[in-house]
Amino acid sequence: MKSILLIGAGRSASTLIEYLLQNSEKENWKITVAELSLELALSKIKGHKNACALLFDINNEEQRKLEVQKADLVISMLPAHMHIAVAKDCVRYKKHMVTASYVSSEMQELNQEALIADITLMNEIGVDPGIDHMSAMKILDDIRQSGGKITGFESFTGGLLAPESEKDNPWKYKFSWNPRNVILAGQGVVKFLHEGNYKYIPYHKLFRRTEILEVEGYGKYEGYANRDSLSYRMVYDLMDINTIYRGTLRRPGYCKAWDVFVQLGATDDSYIIEDSENMTYREFIDSFLPHATGDSVELKLYNYLKIEQDDYELHEKLSWLGIYENTKIGLVKASPAQILQHILEQKWTLKKEDKDLIVMVHKFEYELNGDKKKLQSSMVIAGDDTIQTAMAKTVGLPVAIATKLILNGTIKDRGVLIPVSKSIYQPILNELKNFGIHFTEKEID
Amino acid sequence: MKSILLIGAGRSASTLIEYLLQNSEKENWKITVAELSLELALSKIKGHKNACALLFDINNEEQRKLEVQKADLVISMLPAHMHIAVAKDCVRYKKHMVTASYVSSEMQELNQEALIADITLMNEIGVDPGIDHMSAMKILDDIRQSGGKITGFESFTGGLLAPESEKDNPWKYKFSWNPRNVILAGQGVVKFLHEGNYKYIPYHKLFRRTEILEVEGYGKYEGYANRDSLSYRMVYDLMDINTIYRGTLRRPGYCKAWDVFVQLGATDDSYIIEDSENMTYREFIDSFLPHATGDSVELKLYNYLKIEQDDYELHEKLSWLGIYENTKIGLVKASPAQILQHILEQKWTLKKEDKDLIVMVHKFEYELNGDKKKLQSSMVIAGDDTIQTAMAKTVGLPVAIATKLILNGTIKDRGVLIPVSKSIYQPILNELKNFGIHFTEKEID
Repeated sequence: MKSILLIGAGRSASTLIEYLLQNSEKENWKITVAELSLELALSKIKGHKNACALLFDINNEEQRKLEVQKADLVISMLPAHMHIAVAKDCVRYKKHMVTASYVSSEMQELNQEALIADITLMNEIGVDPGIDHMSAMKILDDIRQSGGKITGFESFTGGLLAPESEKDNPWKYKFSWNPRNVILAGQGVVKFLHEGNYKYIPYHKLFRRTEILEVEGYGKYEGYANRDSLSYRMVYDLMDINTIYRGTLRRPGYCKAWDVFVQLGATDDSYIIEDSENMTYREFIDSFLPHATGDSVELKLYNYLKIEQDDYELHEKLSWLGIYENTKIGLVKASPAQILQHILEQKWTLKKEDKDLIVMVHKFEYELNGDKKKLQSSMVIAGDDTIQTAMAKTVGLPVAIATKLILNGTIKDRGVLIPVSKSIYQPILNELKNFGIHFTEKEID
Repeated sequence: MKSILLIGAGRSASTLIEYLLQNSEKENWKITVAELSLELALSKIKGHKNACALLFDINNEEQRKLEVQKADLVISMLPAHMHIAVAKDCVRYKKHMVTASYVSSEMQELNQEALIADITLMNEIGVDPGIDHMSAMKILDDIRQSGGKITGFESFTGGLLAPESEKDNPWKYKFSWNPRNVILAGQGVVKFLHEGNYKYIPYHKLFRRTEILEVEGYGKYEGYANRDSLSYRMVYDLMDINTIYRGTLRRPGYCKAWDVFVQLGATDDSYIIEDSENMTYREFIDSFLPHATGDSVELKLYNYLKIEQDDYELHEKLSWLGIYENTKIGLVKASPAQILQHILEQKWTLKKEDKDLIVMVHKFEYELNGDKKKLQSSMVIAGDDTIQTAMAKTVGLPVAIATKLILNGTIKDRGVLIPVSKSIYQPILNELKNFGIHFTEKEID
């Protein structure tokens, strides 16, 4: 019997745990769900005979080492910065590990030790990062195999709403992931490569430099650039590519409206607003506007940001959020970003009936036998409910499948890994199809 | 005989040293000019019998302690972060100290020890900070003394060009102070208080929220806000004031043109431009612009930033700087801010015939006997040449005079100080008049 230690049973672990339980009999697994909240862990294992719930504190070193020692493989679904302590234990006790997070430099440094310990430390095996790597590498490898030369690669992912849940929501958006990350998205500088030229976009221009993509059956989305696309040249072995760009998807119009908050300075997390507790939403917005005697906050905002009086779609997005209301903020010593998050959570929290949607689109440009070709590959998956969300499925299933493939010996690669080699992505992508996670490819011009 | 140790004889120390030499006979001073460059120190003391030049390294602890022990007062004209080591020595050996820099938190922490040692650690006694504190406090104290209630205070300073040196320069600006600080000016968030409302301006909006001021005999200037005006409420004892705002002066049109670099992202100092060494000025500008097949860099910039085709003043400012030229940058691993500074230094370095200008304007609003009143107080001083610059005069003279007044016992205040009390500012302002540094007051409406 193989023993799996799963640390962290939060929202994105639901589908993962379901998979582990369902496969535990056939694969001969014993599953320990370790959580700070025993209640949460118990609710997830639902009394399954091959699973047990464990009250667990990652900072309790003794307990952590003990549990890692007992396991054959450890899955960490903790916040990214907490993985490293577990990873070091895994190296020490020669246990495999799986995470859905980006490889930190500290994690990368464990590579040599992991190779010596003959273990797999698999990372970036959720949706983004995760399914993006695997689905892109499959096509990139196919093109290269057939003798094609890749000249351009663009890739977009969005955590969005299923069409039926977009109604009555002018933004067509709610938080299906960490709200704080949505508020701070894009801060810093964006770097990418366009037709051989390096391009840099400062944060205050980012949300007005979008591009439109069409996904069959779902209509149009807009993409804004992620921070560092250049590093993917190395990851995907595309060092001589002319164009490389990674972005995030929203419904058209979201970015232009979001840019209002960026322009105001309302997404800033670097300072504290004076007396934020007693301020109203309306006063918060007003604090970013130039004084203009007699003008309403709405009018001052339109004038300041040169928003046209008849841009009703944009007006509606802003007022629908309640930003002009005289509601007390009630947060002590809060930054603009914290206040904005608080206001948005009143409207952008998923309701029981809401379904989320993950959309991923890759665009490839390549030359084959002298012809220039373009290919678009896309995936759309909707959540079933607020537990088996699209986010939980697309993060959890690759983690679960990788866990199975490491334990049953299909994945033999060792060291600190991400799923970019065929031996890893091929079996995982194959099994993901059984869960409706598959890509549709078409040539475009 | 009193012994003065002056550390650092850079550009802003010229007038200071001149004053010290000229007064050395009467005041019975021995002056040691301590410098990393012995040549520079020798050139400044010009063989004066009461002065000597010393090859000096601030990081040589033994030498530093020895020289501080020998002195009665130490003037530090080093970069701000280097003062603290000297200040600690001054406390230890019970020596007075004078600097023109802002009080750091480390400096402030020495207050109690300085009081016990019965020494004066005088800071912020240059021009800004320095003359701004003294001239503002004089009027604020006068208004309060006469029973007036202060409701508003705005204060502006600019390091600019004398009118005769503005010709043939569409920006009417050159560097008369640390260029790097000019490039990075305003980064972060601006905080001020306007008619009882807190106001916050993000960096990307700062240079378009200017106000125009008129200075008699010199015409119009525009002011943009400094980062933190709120802290001055405490410094000037204005805790119940409605409006407080501090700003920086430029000639009208400068800020709108500077905002082009802000909008592009060309003032960012947080990342390295790929292959900056081999890039040209023109390619640098192009790297911030969206791709548009067939359009020139100039046209792309105008379109992107919505600059009108006939805004010739702005076009001229940009092209005059040479930003569109195919000149190699030649800087290895440079940030956008470093590259921009390099380009601007080709045009904005003071020439032998150039004279700089310091302009300072205070605006007060107050109520006296039921009447609402407004007062504007302003100072303008021009440099004589590139050595006795307005900057060197206005920084150096207050430092020099404070030194004299501490040594001759006129200033008896002890501890970590800034010049906001009458016992300090009154004698200094009085003597500054002898050097043409004086304020003109007039009631305005």
